[in-house]
Amino acid sequence: MIDLTLIGIGTGNLDHVTLQAIKAMNTADLILIPLKGEDKSDLAGLRQQIFRTCVTNPATRIDSFDLPERDPGTPDYLRRVNDWHDQIAAVWHTAIERHLAQGGGPKVAFLVWGDPSLYDSTLRIAERLSGQRALHLHVIPGITAIQALCAAHAIPLNDLAAPVTITTGRQLRESGWPPGAETVVVMLDNGGAFGAIDPEGVSIWWGAYVGMDRQVLVSGPLEAVAGQISETRARIRSEHGWVMDIYLMRRKSRQSDFPKG
Amino acid sequence: MIDLTLIGIGTGNLDHVTLQAIKAMNTADLILIPLKGEDKSDLAGLRQQIFRTCVTNPATRIDSFDLPERDPGTPDYLRRVNDWHDQIAAVWHTAIERHLAQGGGPKVAFLVWGDPSLYDSTLRIAERLSGQRALHLHVIPGITAIQALCAAHAIPLNDLAAPVTITTGRQLRESGWPPGAETVVVMLDNGGAFGAIDPEGVSIWWGAYVGMDRQVLVSGPLEAVAGQISETRARIRSEHGWVMDIYLMRRKSRQSDFPKG
Repeated sequence: MIDLTLIGIGTGNLDHVTLQAIKAMNTADLILIPLKGEDKSDLAGLRQQIFRTCVTNPATRIDSFDLPERDPGTPDYLRRVNDWHDQIAAVWHTAIERHLAQGGGPKVAFLVWGDPSLYDSTLRIAERLSGQRALHLHVIPGITAIQALCAAHAIPLNDLAAPVTITTGRQLRESGWPPGAETVVVMLDNGGAFGAIDPEGVSIWWGAYVGMDRQVLVSGPLEAVAGQISETRARIRSEHGWVMDIYLMRRKSRQSDFPKG
Repeated sequence: MIDLTLIGIGTGNLDHVTLQAIKAMNTADLILIPLKGEDKSDLAGLRQQIFRTCVTNPATRIDSFDLPERDPGTPDYLRRVNDWHDQIAAVWHTAIERHLAQGGGPKVAFLVWGDPSLYDSTLRIAERLSGQRALHLHVIPGITAIQALCAAHAIPLNDLAAPVTITTGRQLRESGWPPGAETVVVMLDNGGAFGAIDPEGVSIWWGAYVGMDRQVLVSGPLEAVAGQISETRARIRSEHGWVMDIYLMRRKSRQSDFPKG
């Protein structure tokens, strides 16, 4: 029986860590950390720093594993991601079995950027493990990029008593503005998906590296700032070698718009 | 010039507090806390406990204020809420001016349940203050009930690469299942708004007092567990004198459903 704990650690800011996350890290027998693969090298360094700062229990071991890469030969997106999750689960399984074979305790933890529930694969990969070993799964919530974005701009996520849609850059490109939505949060955009929608009456609050020291923010009417956002994104991406960004857009209800001209 | 910091403190669990929130509390000259009004008495006690546990700076003062009540004579919901926010802003203004008149420093903070961005009025009230005094507004993100719910059930918020709609009980009753949505999170439901939708193919993950010791969870096909949720909610509400709950519903895409019978 394995006690598997997925610990949300926030969006790249050591101070996003909760007291609950610190307790969970110090209860773990083993914390598994990905070393290569998709993880950005400076984020890996930050994760090591979180570990060093928060873990005071000398019995907690840390071990690393190499993330497999997605197979670009699989054309279907969901299939490609699902296959990749299968491979990661196999790598986890090997690392955990090795730890147990060496007499390690059954409490295994992963540190997850943001929150394990939001556009993160860790829960789905953990589920795959449960076919191979009895598993007790725990989740420690963490600060998400959505909250870090809203905090950085000091704006509410929702309009008063109004709904919010969270979606992906891919969905926005394929399906356009979600039907009936007034507030839309876009994550996992590889750049400029907002170009796929009619900017009329839309305001945007954009942020890159939200919550980190290097955080960059732009906001304004979409029509006016779309170019600035795209240029900024390209520049900081080339400066740092990677970029993670997120944005919130609000569209005035069409019926309440003033007629133009 | 006032430095106003809204500090998210999570959903009623001392351990939801982040390191960033603790630092912000200890930097404040004054922390303002509502004493009466809508705040549930045991939550007020917990907030005092968070203050006592996290604030080690002897220079940080705590002061309380009485929350005004909403005027039930105002029939329109949004108008009633807006009027109420005006009144709260006036109460804040008085408390802050008194603090400054006594020689208090300009750093004022509020402790906000959950996160200040999500279905919370604090940001909107703070905006009203900026008409009366130059204001520098800071927001510290906190764990929301959405993350606490998903963590408690150990489920992802979104289906793989799929969107999510966050809405209110009122909206669900008035407008039904949001068009095109597969995953819907419902907050601020005063009980049983899920009864307004067709339960066919819908699963629900419900939680009350999520993240707290007294947390209660129910999940399953909506048709099968709706009654159990309503009964549980009524029982725990009468036990504790108040209840806060939240739920996530997922509906299988209609085209992928197997035909019945």
